Amino acid sequence: MVSLTEGQKATLSPNAIKFLENVHHLPFAGLLSNFLTMPSRVPSLRQGVEAKMAPGEADLIAKHGLQLKEITIANVPVVVIEPPVIHPEKESKILFNIFGGAFIMGSPRDRAALTMAAELGIRVYSVNYTRSPEAKYPVARDQCFSVYRALVKEGPPGGLPIDPADIYTMGSSSGAQLLLSMFLLARKEGLPIPSAGAYLCTPAVDLSGAGDSTVFNARDRDIMPYSLLYSMVAQNYFEEGVDLQDPLVSPIYASYDTWFPRTVITVGTRDFALSNGIRMYWKLREAGVETELLVSEGMWHGFVWDPVVPEALTARAAVIKFMQNKK
Amino acid sequence: MVSLTEGQKATLSPNAIKFLENVHHLPFAGLLSNFLTMPSRVPSLRQGVEAKMAPGEADLIAKHGLQLKEITIANVPVVVIEPPVIHPEKESKILFNIFGGAFIMGSPRDRAALTMAAELGIRVYSVNYTRSPEAKYPVARDQCFSVYRALVKEGPPGGLPIDPADIYTMGSSSGAQLLLSMFLLARKEGLPIPSAGAYLCTPAVDLSGAGDSTVFNARDRDIMPYSLLYSMVAQNYFEEGVDLQDPLVSPIYASYDTWFPRTVITVGTRDFALSNGIRMYWKLREAGVETELLVSEGMWHGFVWDPVVPEALTARAAVIKFMQNKK
Repeated sequence: MVSLTEGQKATLSPNAIKFLENVHHLPFAGLLSNFLTMPSRVPSLRQGVEAKMAPGEADLIAKHGLQLKEITIANVPVVVIEPPVIHPEKESKILFNIFGGAFIMGSPRDRAALTMAAELGIRVYSVNYTRSPEAKYPVARDQCFSVYRALVKEGPPGGLPIDPADIYTMGSSSGAQLLLSMFLLARKEGLPIPSAGAYLCTPAVDLSGAGDSTVFNARDRDIMPYSLLYSMVAQNYFEEGVDLQDPLVSPIYASYDTWFPRTVITVGTRDFALSNGIRMYWKLREAGVETELLVSEGMWHGFVWDPVVPEALTARAAVIKFMQNKK
Repeated sequence: MVSLTEGQKATLSPNAIKFLENVHHLPFAGLLSNFLTMPSRVPSLRQGVEAKMAPGEADLIAKHGLQLKEITIANVPVVVIEPPVIHPEKESKILFNIFGGAFIMGSPRDRAALTMAAELGIRVYSVNYTRSPEAKYPVARDQCFSVYRALVKEGPPGGLPIDPADIYTMGSSSGAQLLLSMFLLARKEGLPIPSAGAYLCTPAVDLSGAGDSTVFNARDRDIMPYSLLYSMVAQNYFEEGVDLQDPLVSPIYASYDTWFPRTVITVGTRDFALSNGIRMYWKLREAGVETELLVSEGMWHGFVWDPVVPEALTARAAVIKFMQNKK
């Protein structure tokens, strides 16, 4: 059960209350986290999540009339999601998306990708990177980078190179770690950064565990105990001896400058990643980057993709507004 | 003691860690809160705070060369704080300030007022309203309103009426409740709203106790147990039977529109009022008001006025930037 008092319910929508009341943590998840997330258990963890998410994904595809195809770019599978109508001004633009799921779960055609294709009205290129433990850091990041480089150097199969100024970017949770690590690699290699606008959704930009919210939202407030997430990542994604404060691993520790695209960040007060979002906001702001931080009352990790919770709809509308740069 | 883990320390400045390590809650404050805050104890509570704050206030006055005088406007004492140099473009402008202190403590020449006079470089009119229990709701609000009305109708003693467009406003904690209640009263009475820019510092805009952060920051995270604050207000400020969801009492429940001035809000993640700030941000934003929410990692109620903590200096610089409307 998630802790939820009457005073807390008073500032939540009925949909959000219903959602939180249906969250059931595994008993003793904290004590058992290493066992529950060991590599041999990953297939069943994935299966559980996929079974839970599939109906909602199918609904979104049907509701918005989205077309999906899987292509290969730079030897990496990529899912292209296309809305039925694309505004002329967005015809040449794309959203480059990196999905989340603690590096071990998740899908390039998840709610995040589908929802943004529909609501931003844009073609989404969603990298189907190899998850962990099959691939460990930095394989997934390098795959994302290879796809990005191919898109701006050669273009998608049968198309022309895409102008980095026409590329929006998005990363959710662990996907934001991959995205920023990819930006930093692109900088190192002298490749231009995609600059149409970046969306960091509840970003896991510090994998060291530091931060206020990784403590106060660790147990009975967010949708998953933080120890479980941490064990997932530690046991499956990292090679032995990785430096968790290496900026390519935990991009909060990198230096940024005005090369970084204008950025919007969403988090919630129940979110273990709240502090990540706040720290990234100040880091980018102090670097002179146009940044907007959207913090939602009582919301959990990844809440923003919920199809009915009003708080999610409000936050998404604000993200879309920022991405479209409409004042 | 305030709870503070190594992971939390990792995202705080050494100054902030030192501050938090020196916070000592009264033992059994939760159980004893009604006793500790009963009206007969208010004088000693005030004395304790004043003794603690006086040296810092004297330092600020000396350091910035501030001039203070006490005048009377509409039969209400007002402290005018003047910085040694006022930029010509700010000569005609003022900051109308309402101090905080749970309605029972605090002073019109507190760190907030002195710091803003110096850092915004502006004359501050700081209303010395009657605190509780000597005066109960809505006496203080009505005093603030009378001062504001006199300033825009007749001007300060010996001066000309002040254009509401030249009036910045600020309210800290309970001061923000008074400020917004005053705005709502001004609207009712057909008086123009001060429109140069509003600063809601860790605003106590919901006195009903609702919100996520009044729960998770209630005990060992903020600088004062929330039950103590709540008892202070309940026992001293409210008349019996007051409706805590009356918009004039808890201005989060009012309706706003674009008559509301452009507004900046600061809160911290340890702050009991975090949710108040977040909710107010969305409320104003959804009403079409230009609003900026600044959430600081690991910061406590009122942190922003600390003279040395780097997180406070950063947040204040962002507030000043917003108030000066510099892009």
